[in-house]
Amino acid sequence: MTVRARPDPAGQVSLSDIQLPVRASLARVGEEMWRIVAVDSALLNGVSEHLMLMKGKMLRPTLLLLSSEADGAAQPRAAAYAGVVELIHLATLVHDDAVDHSVLRRGMPTINALFTHQVAVIAGDFLYSRAVQELVRLGDLEALRVFAKASNELTIGEMRQLSALDALRFSEEDYEFLIRAKTAALFSAACEVGGLCGAERFRVELAEYGSYLGMAFQVVDDLLDYTGASATVGKPTGLDLKEHKVTLPLIAALRTMPPASRAAVDDLFSSPEPDDAQIARVVGIVEEEGGLDYARERGEGYASRADEVLSRLPESPARRALQDTLTYVMERRA
Amino acid sequence: MTVRARPDPAGQVSLSDIQLPVRASLARVGEEMWRIVAVDSALLNGVSEHLMLMKGKMLRPTLLLLSSEADGAAQPRAAAYAGVVELIHLATLVHDDAVDHSVLRRGMPTINALFTHQVAVIAGDFLYSRAVQELVRLGDLEALRVFAKASNELTIGEMRQLSALDALRFSEEDYEFLIRAKTAALFSAACEVGGLCGAERFRVELAEYGSYLGMAFQVVDDLLDYTGASATVGKPTGLDLKEHKVTLPLIAALRTMPPASRAAVDDLFSSPEPDDAQIARVVGIVEEEGGLDYARERGEGYASRADEVLSRLPESPARRALQDTLTYVMERRA
Repeated sequence: MTVRARPDPAGQVSLSDIQLPVRASLARVGEEMWRIVAVDSALLNGVSEHLMLMKGKMLRPTLLLLSSEADGAAQPRAAAYAGVVELIHLATLVHDDAVDHSVLRRGMPTINALFTHQVAVIAGDFLYSRAVQELVRLGDLEALRVFAKASNELTIGEMRQLSALDALRFSEEDYEFLIRAKTAALFSAACEVGGLCGAERFRVELAEYGSYLGMAFQVVDDLLDYTGASATVGKPTGLDLKEHKVTLPLIAALRTMPPASRAAVDDLFSSPEPDDAQIARVVGIVEEEGGLDYARERGEGYASRADEVLSRLPESPARRALQDTLTYVMERRA
Repeated sequence: MTVRARPDPAGQVSLSDIQLPVRASLARVGEEMWRIVAVDSALLNGVSEHLMLMKGKMLRPTLLLLSSEADGAAQPRAAAYAGVVELIHLATLVHDDAVDHSVLRRGMPTINALFTHQVAVIAGDFLYSRAVQELVRLGDLEALRVFAKASNELTIGEMRQLSALDALRFSEEDYEFLIRAKTAALFSAACEVGGLCGAERFRVELAEYGSYLGMAFQVVDDLLDYTGASATVGKPTGLDLKEHKVTLPLIAALRTMPPASRAAVDDLFSSPEPDDAQIARVVGIVEEEGGLDYARERGEGYASRADEVLSRLPESPARRALQDTLTYVMERRA
């Protein structure tokens, strides 16, 4: 990676470093989100309140706002679009958790756990249609085009994952398709729509940057499932393996695995509820076979391509923050 | 009601009578729907195939097409919009069935029964985002505005239903709010968007007609749950009562019910799984108390208001068919 020298002597880029150039706009995004979801329904307001409390890193709004300033001043309405992208993201999280019967997200109860499964499905639909309504209000067919395409890709990716009959035959190509659809599509849409709000001539570059960044982000996310500690990631290590989800570290490790190790992996994947010992064993095997290193390299490769794309943009505080985002994503531990 | 003399001497208006003026366009709607949902995913194609097989009466596309011809020739692209409204409707049915854990719809297995709950939630999201993409392709912000509003109202209605703490305190006003959101909103949107495709100066009237028609439709639907036979409605009589859903016949009957009858109703609503005898008893009580007659009158009232709105439109085969639709909806037995 050709990422520039890090701003912090400890070698860490923090979220607030990245958010610095758009801090004022970002502070308005929460209000915009509340405005968009305002409704006369105690239950829906309860759902929204809980979602606002579990508010994450606001990474997609940050990307949208930074992208909007990549060619000088952005339009003030960028904050509304930033609210829209976070609402679309929340809608997908709420449905994901409902579909997976997850009970925790970012250390807090999910909507399906706190309310019911029914509430979660309907609330996701509510959030998504409100996001569409806001884009209509803004009169922006292009942004609608970009976001609707990303949302649709996401469902196709999820469906592809559900229909994988033999998890262990999931190829690297399948994995790339999946993370492009599940993660990179919305990152890319956030950056592209940001471009539409102030850096239109770099729309294509920003979309491409967002896509590579999203790929890197998801690879690191999948790596953290192997290496992260429960407290920082907010979910137990090895959860993907427990749920028989095959990600890049395992795909890479399977290629060179000796028969005894492969037998341990097969064992885990034929256990309906793998125990901790099985998971620890497979995590060890994946590391031994270089699966973690391989995935790390692939992640770095995506980040590096994202960085190359950025070099086509003019120098600006926003561009520097987008570069720092690559470092942040690659270094994150949670 | 001031509905004109019926075209059939037996006093029946059939679906094909109504569809006659738009038969050619309607024949293209299926193709349009296939075009819109085309995707490289065996699982999603499987879902779409099943939904096309269980294709219902195509009432919303019919209304859209008839509305589009209410002021002379319609735009040829009306068929694409008709496909969109049916896809939005299917998306909501798929989520409804998933949320209610229903196993049958129109006598066929639901998507959640045939595939899984997960598949149903994701498939609904897929269908909805494809519908949005199609409206973007058509470059039609106004249609997007109308459909997104209707979709959002629907979720608010469903949420209101879920949050009703004491079913038996559900008022007629609550019921009107619910059926407006759950049914009338999309009927109205279908007619309004039809108007946008060829009868723009009657846009408001068509929206209003669709809303009253939708109210009448839902009142009759709820009546059929009390009066219909299992074979024709495709679901057992008394299902709403079994699920503790309070609709207009019961709301009306509760007003005059003597204590012994009220005790039987309370009994049913405090039984987690009411048996057939309990249901039959309450159906009998509701009839005795005039609940069915009251609901019937209210339904006729909505149909009559819809008919009045139509009288503001110029005479045409489409207007006649929209009038006949009122008769069809009020007379239907399934």
